[in-house]
Amino acid sequence: MLVVMSTDATRDQVARVVQVIEEMGYQARPMPGAQRTSVGVVGNDGRVDGSRLEALGGVAEVIHVSKPYKQVSREWRPENTLVTIAPGVVFGGGEIPIIAGPCSVESEQQIVLAAQQVRDAGGAALRGGAYKPRSSPYAFQGLGEAGLKILAEVREATGLPVVTEVVDPGDVDLVASYADMLQVGTRNMQNFPLLQAVGGVGKPVMLKRGMNATIEEWLMAAEYIAQRGNLDIVLCERGIRTFEKATRNTLDISAVPIAQRLSHLPVIVDPSHSGGRRDLVLPLSRAAIAVGADGIIVDVHPYPESALCDGPQALVESDLRELAAVAAHLSPLVGRTLTPAPAVPREPAVA
Amino acid sequence: MLVVMSTDATRDQVARVVQVIEEMGYQARPMPGAQRTSVGVVGNDGRVDGSRLEALGGVAEVIHVSKPYKQVSREWRPENTLVTIAPGVVFGGGEIPIIAGPCSVESEQQIVLAAQQVRDAGGAALRGGAYKPRSSPYAFQGLGEAGLKILAEVREATGLPVVTEVVDPGDVDLVASYADMLQVGTRNMQNFPLLQAVGGVGKPVMLKRGMNATIEEWLMAAEYIAQRGNLDIVLCERGIRTFEKATRNTLDISAVPIAQRLSHLPVIVDPSHSGGRRDLVLPLSRAAIAVGADGIIVDVHPYPESALCDGPQALVESDLRELAAVAAHLSPLVGRTLTPAPAVPREPAVA
Amino acid sequence: MLVVMSTDATRDQVARVVQVIEEMGYQARPMPGAQRTSVGVVGNDGRVDGSRLEALGGVAEVIHVSKPYKQVSREWRPENTLVTIAPGVVFGGGEIPIIAGPCSVESEQQIVLAAQQVRDAGGAALRGGAYKPRSSPYAFQGLGEAGLKILAEVREATGLPVVTEVVDPGDVDLVASYADMLQVGTRNMQNFPLLQAVGGVGKPVMLKRGMNATIEEWLMAAEYIAQRGNLDIVLCERGIRTFEKATRNTLDISAVPIAQRLSHLPVIVDPSHSGGRRDLVLPLSRAAIAVGADGIIVDVHPYPESALCDGPQALVESDLRELAAVAAHLSPLVGRTLTPAPAVPREPAVA
Amino acid sequence: MLVVMSTDATRDQVARVVQVIEEMGYQARPMPGAQRTSVGVVGNDGRVDGSRLEALGGVAEVIHVSKPYKQVSREWRPENTLVTIAPGVVFGGGEIPIIAGPCSVESEQQIVLAAQQVRDAGGAALRGGAYKPRSSPYAFQGLGEAGLKILAEVREATGLPVVTEVVDPGDVDLVASYADMLQVGTRNMQNFPLLQAVGGVGKPVMLKRGMNATIEEWLMAAEYIAQRGNLDIVLCERGIRTFEKATRNTLDISAVPIAQRLSHLPVIVDPSHSGGRRDLVLPLSRAAIAVGADGIIVDVHPYPESALCDGPQALVESDLRELAAVAAHLSPLVGRTLTPAPAVPREPAVA
Repeated sequence: MLVVMSTDATRDQVARVVQVIEEMGYQARPMPGAQRTSVGVVGNDGRVDGSRLEALGGVAEVIHVSKPYKQVSREWRPENTLVTIAPGVVFGGGEIPIIAGPCSVESEQQIVLAAQQVRDAGGAALRGGAYKPRSSPYAFQGLGEAGLKILAEVREATGLPVVTEVVDPGDVDLVASYADMLQVGTRNMQNFPLLQAVGGVGKPVMLKRGMNATIEEWLMAAEYIAQRGNLDIVLCERGIRTFEKATRNTLDISAVPIAQRLSHLPVIVDPSHSGGRRDLVLPLSRAAIAVGADGIIVDVHPYPESALCDGPQALVESDLRELAAVAAHLSPLVGRTLTPAPAVPREPAVA
Repeated sequence: MLVVMSTDATRDQVARVVQVIEEMGYQARPMPGAQRTSVGVVGNDGRVDGSRLEALGGVAEVIHVSKPYKQVSREWRPENTLVTIAPGVVFGGGEIPIIAGPCSVESEQQIVLAAQQVRDAGGAALRGGAYKPRSSPYAFQGLGEAGLKILAEVREATGLPVVTEVVDPGDVDLVASYADMLQVGTRNMQNFPLLQAVGGVGKPVMLKRGMNATIEEWLMAAEYIAQRGNLDIVLCERGIRTFEKATRNTLDISAVPIAQRLSHLPVIVDPSHSGGRRDLVLPLSRAAIAVGADGIIVDVHPYPESALCDGPQALVESDLRELAAVAAHLSPLVGRTLTPAPAVPREPAVA
Repeated sequence: MLVVMSTDATRDQVARVVQVIEEMGYQARPMPGAQRTSVGVVGNDGRVDGSRLEALGGVAEVIHVSKPYKQVSREWRPENTLVTIAPGVVFGGGEIPIIAGPCSVESEQQIVLAAQQVRDAGGAALRGGAYKPRSSPYAFQGLGEAGLKILAEVREATGLPVVTEVVDPGDVDLVASYADMLQVGTRNMQNFPLLQAVGGVGKPVMLKRGMNATIEEWLMAAEYIAQRGNLDIVLCERGIRTFEKATRNTLDISAVPIAQRLSHLPVIVDPSHSGGRRDLVLPLSRAAIAVGADGIIVDVHPYPESALCDGPQALVESDLRELAAVAAHLSPLVGRTLTPAPAVPREPAVA
Repeated sequence: MLVVMSTDATRDQVARVVQVIEEMGYQARPMPGAQRTSVGVVGNDGRVDGSRLEALGGVAEVIHVSKPYKQVSREWRPENTLVTIAPGVVFGGGEIPIIAGPCSVESEQQIVLAAQQVRDAGGAALRGGAYKPRSSPYAFQGLGEAGLKILAEVREATGLPVVTEVVDPGDVDLVASYADMLQVGTRNMQNFPLLQAVGGVGKPVMLKRGMNATIEEWLMAAEYIAQRGNLDIVLCERGIRTFEKATRNTLDISAVPIAQRLSHLPVIVDPSHSGGRRDLVLPLSRAAIAVGADGIIVDVHPYPESALCDGPQALVESDLRELAAVAAHLSPLVGRTLTPAPAVPREPAVA
C-alpha cells in the first residue's frame, strides 16, 4: 500500500501518517519526491482496509498494491483447482464441459425434452432455473421447489448433473438438497448473505460475474464463499454493461485469461446471456474455447418460440449439436478435450 | 410495442407475428415500410413480456413503447407521493429533510455523539448501518442487532428518526421493528426477495439506485416493492459506475428530474457515496438541492480518522453545519424550505 | 512514480529496474514488501513516459503519482486564470457569463433573431456553428465561411462576442479571423493537430470534454493547447457516455469542482448537449451554477421545430429568459453575479 | 421511423406530426394505443434526420428503425467486399492476413529488424507509425515524413506492404504517397474532415473503432469514407472503454460477427491495444480468429524494453512466431487459411 500525500502536506501530517501505519501494525517507509511525499506500507498482507489512512490530513490518495483477496488467488495456491460436480464432470482440468438447458424450468415435459437434447448433443450437465430473478414483478418468477423436483427426476433419467440458481439465503439448504451445483447470478454477485450461505452448504458453486463488477470485485465475491470453507467455485463470465447496445451485454473475453492468471479457480463463459442473441452463441462459444475457457454454459430450449424467458437467445437442438461438434474440434488446439455426455443410465433390472 | 421484422422476412413470418400477438390478447397493426415491415402491438398495458415475440422467425427487434412499470409511474398517479417517516419528516412535499450519520454503527458513544451533531446542525433524521455489505469478507461487517438497539436508544434521546440498511430478507422483520425507514442499498437494488420482503413489512423504504442500473430498472425495482402494497418509497440517486475514476462513482444529477417526471415518488441524493470524497459533498449537495432533489443523505462521523468504514467521505460537525446553512439558503430558490431538526425531547418528569 | 514488481520477480529484475530508472536520470528507491517489492521513482517531474519501465521483466504495474500535465495544473499556477473573450465578458472571475445561440448557423435571419433573443434575455455571448461535425455524412454540415460572415455581422449589430467551432486544423486561421472564441468539440478533444493549431492562433479556446475522456485526459488535451503558448482556455463539461440511455449523455457534475481543484482554468457547463432534452436544461443549469461552474452554454433556437440540428434540446426565448432570471438569483449564493448582456451598440452617427 | 407521442398529446399535436412527416416527403401511419399514440413513418430510406420531428409538441421519442448508413450495409451489398492492399494480401476472403510491426517508427535499424522478424514469422503486412497521436504533448510524436521514407525503403527490401496512420487531413496526400493502407486511429474515428480526405485519396483505409463508439457510429464513420467513393475499408475492433481497469480497453469480441452481419466490409482485430498487455495478445488472437475475424494486427518490437511507445504490449519475435503458428492451425476450423508472407524480393542482378 502506498499513501500519496498532497503537494502541500506538512511535515507533521507525514509524521501522523507514519504513526498511524505503525499503530496498525505495519512498517512505514516515507519516500520524499520532487512534487510530493509518498509513504509505503510494508508488511501488509493484502487484507487491510486503507480507509483509515485516506481520512488523515494531507493524504491525497491511497494506492493498493497487494491484492485484497487471498484464498482464491493463484499466489496462494499455484495449481489449478479442479471442481467436480458429478463423476466425470470436472472443471479446471483437461476436459471442457458444456452445460446446457433452458433459462427456466417451465414443465416436466419441457425439461425432459431439453435434457434429452442436451445429452444427445454431447452436453455434460443440465441447467434450468426454478427461482428466477426477473426485472419485472409481473414476469414469470419460476416454479420454485416444484421445479427443483422436476430437475432431480430428470437427472435420474438422464444422468446429467443439475446446475440451478439460488436467489435467497433462506432457500440455500433446500436448493442444495436437489442440485449438483448452485448458481449465484449476476445480480447477486455482491449479495453477501447469499455468498456466505452457499459458502457453508457444501456444494459446488458457479459464481456469475456481476454485470457491473470488476474482475477484482468478482474475485472478492469468490473470497466470500471461500472464507466459509468452500473452494469448489467456478467463475462464469457472462458479459458486462457498457455503452454498446447492439448486444445485451459486452462479453469481456479478456476476463477469462486474466481471472485464470489471478486465481486458481476455473473460468467458464456464458455466450447466451452476454450476447442476448441466438446468432452470436456459436461464434462467441468458439472464441471462448479458443481463449482458453474451462467450460461453456448455453441456453437451449426445445421450442424457443414459446419460452417464458430469454427465448431470443436460446439455441435449438441442431444449434447445440453444431456447437458441440465445433467445440470438440477446437478443444485440442488449446490442449483440451470436450467432456463427454454421461452414459445412458442403466435401466433398473426387472424383478 | 413495435415488432420490427428483418428486411428479408417472409410474408408468412409477418403473418405468424400477427397471429401470436392476437393469441396474446392484443391487436396487431402491420406497417410495411420501404426497407422492412414493422408490426405495432395495440392494447398493450405495459406489463407484457415481449420475449416470446423476439424469438419468432424473421423478427429483428422488439421495441418497447409503453413503460414496463405501472404503480410507481406518474401516469398512474399524477400527484407527488408524500413519504412520512416520523412526525414532521416528510419527503416529496415542500420541505427538504437532511438525513445524516455515520456509515456504520460502531459504538454507543460514537452514535450518541454523531446524533447530537446531526440534530444540532439541523438534520432531520439519523442514518447508521448495523448490517454492512462490504466487498471484502475481512472488513467490518456491522454490529447487527446490537447496533439496531443503539440506534433505537439514540432515537429516544434525540427525537431523530432512524434510517438503517437491511441486506437479508430474513432480517427484514427484525430491522423493521427498530427502524423508521429501511434502506435497500445499491448492491441490493435487484435483490428481488429482499424487495418483496421490504414491500410487505409496512415501513417506508429508501431504495438506492444500483450503481449499474438504468433509471428504468430502478423504477422497476420500486415496482417490486409497490406490488407488495407499499408505496412509501423514497428513491435515492447515489452515483453510477462509469469509466471516470476521479470519483468513486459518477453522480447522475440528471436522474433526479427524470425520475421525478417518470414517477410520483420522491427522489433524494447521496453526495457522499457518489463522490467518495469529503471535499465534493458540499458542492454536490448544492447541486442536488438546486436541481430539485427532495432530500439529501450524507455521511457524518464524529472522528472520521478512526471510522471503520468510508472515513474519507465523512463530513465533520463543522462541515455539516455549513451544509445545512447552505441548504437553508438554497431551498427557497426552488420553492422549498429545509425540514427543521426535531425539538429536543421532553425530559422525563422526576417522580 | 511507483514500479510494482510481480511476486515472483527475481533480485536481478529488481536491479535492472533500478538501473533503468537511474539511466533515465531519476533516483530509485526499492521498497521490499511482504508480498512483493516496489521501486519508487524520485525526482520525476510528472512528464516522464513510464512505458519503458512497464516493459521490463518482472514488472507488474507502473503507478503514476505525479500528474502528467503541468502548465494547466493548479500546482503550477495557484490563482484562477481569467479568460476574457470581449470587453466585460470574463470567465473564471466573479461573474458568470451565459453563452447562448443555435447549434448551427442556418441563415442570416435565424441568427439575427436568435442574437436579439440572447441579448434581450441577458446572454453575454453568442454561439453558432458554421462547421458542424455530424455523425451522418447525409446530415447538414454547416454553411462554412458564409456562416462565419453572418456571425461577424451579427456581432457588429448586437455587441455579442461570437463563439464558434473549428473542426479542421486547416481552417483554424480562417475561423479565428472571425470568432472571439474558438470551440473544440467533444469529438475533437484528442485531435492533436487541431489542438496544436488552436494553441498557436492567439484566440481564446473553449475545450469541450470528450464524451469518453477522463478528467485527466481532458486536462492533458488542454496542456496541448497550453504548450503552444495559449493559456486562454475555458474547459466545458458536456456529459460523458455511460450505460444510461434516458439522457443523451450523463452530465458529470462532479467534474466541475474536480477540474477547478486540479486546474486554474475556468470550467463551464453545457446542459443542452449533456441532457439532449429541453426539459432538463433549466434544472441542470441550476445545478451547474450551484456546484460552482464559471459559465453556462445553452442551445437556443428562434423556431426549434424547424432547426436543422439538435432541435429537441434547444430552448425558446421564454425558456432563456427564465434561465437567465434563475441564474441571476442563484449566483449570489455561490458568491457570483451574472455577466450582463452587452450594451446596445451605439448607432453610427449620421453624417 | 416511429414517432411516439406522450400520453397527454392532443389530437392536434398528432395531426401536426402527420403533417410534418408528409411535408418531409414520407407517409404517416398513426397508430393509436392503449397508453399513447405512435405515428409510423413509411418510405424513409434510412438517411432522414429525425430531429425536426423530435422538436414537435407532444412528441415523447423518435425511434429509428431503418439503418442510418447505406453504402456500407450488407443490405446494400450482400456479398463480402474484398480489400486488396498488395498482390496476395486481401482482407475479407478466404485468407487471413496478419499485420505486425512496432507502434512507431523510431529508426531505420529498428524497422528493418522488425520487418525481417515479421516476414520470417509469417506476417503479411508491416505496420508502423510515423505520425503518432499521443495523449501527452511531451511524449514522442513520431518521425513524420522521415518515418514514411524508412517504411517505403523497408517495403522495397522485404516485399511487405505498409500500413501507417494519418492524423491530419492536410497530411493525407503525403502519407498516401508512401503507404499501401492508411490507418485512421481510434481517437480520429469521428474526425470527419480526415474521413473525407482519406475517402478521396484512392488508397485502402483501416478504420479503427472509436474507443467510445457504438457499432452503428463506427459504420457511420465508414459511410463517410464510402460517400467519397472509397469502399476499400477494413474495420478494426480495438477495444472499447468500460469500467473494467484490468485491461487498457475491453475487447468487444462480439463486434466482429455483428459488424460482419451488418456490413459487407472486412473486420479485423487488434489484440495489442485492446488488452494493453503482452500476455493477452496470444489468447485474444486465438479468440479473434475463432470468432471469425478477417485479420489480426499486432504490435511487435525488436527490443520492447526500449520502445518509445506501447512497449508493454509489444510481442517479441518468438511470440510472433507462436502467434502465426497458432493462427495457421486455427484458421481451417473457420474455413480459412493464413495469408503467407510475401516471397523474398528478387535480389537486384549485379551488373
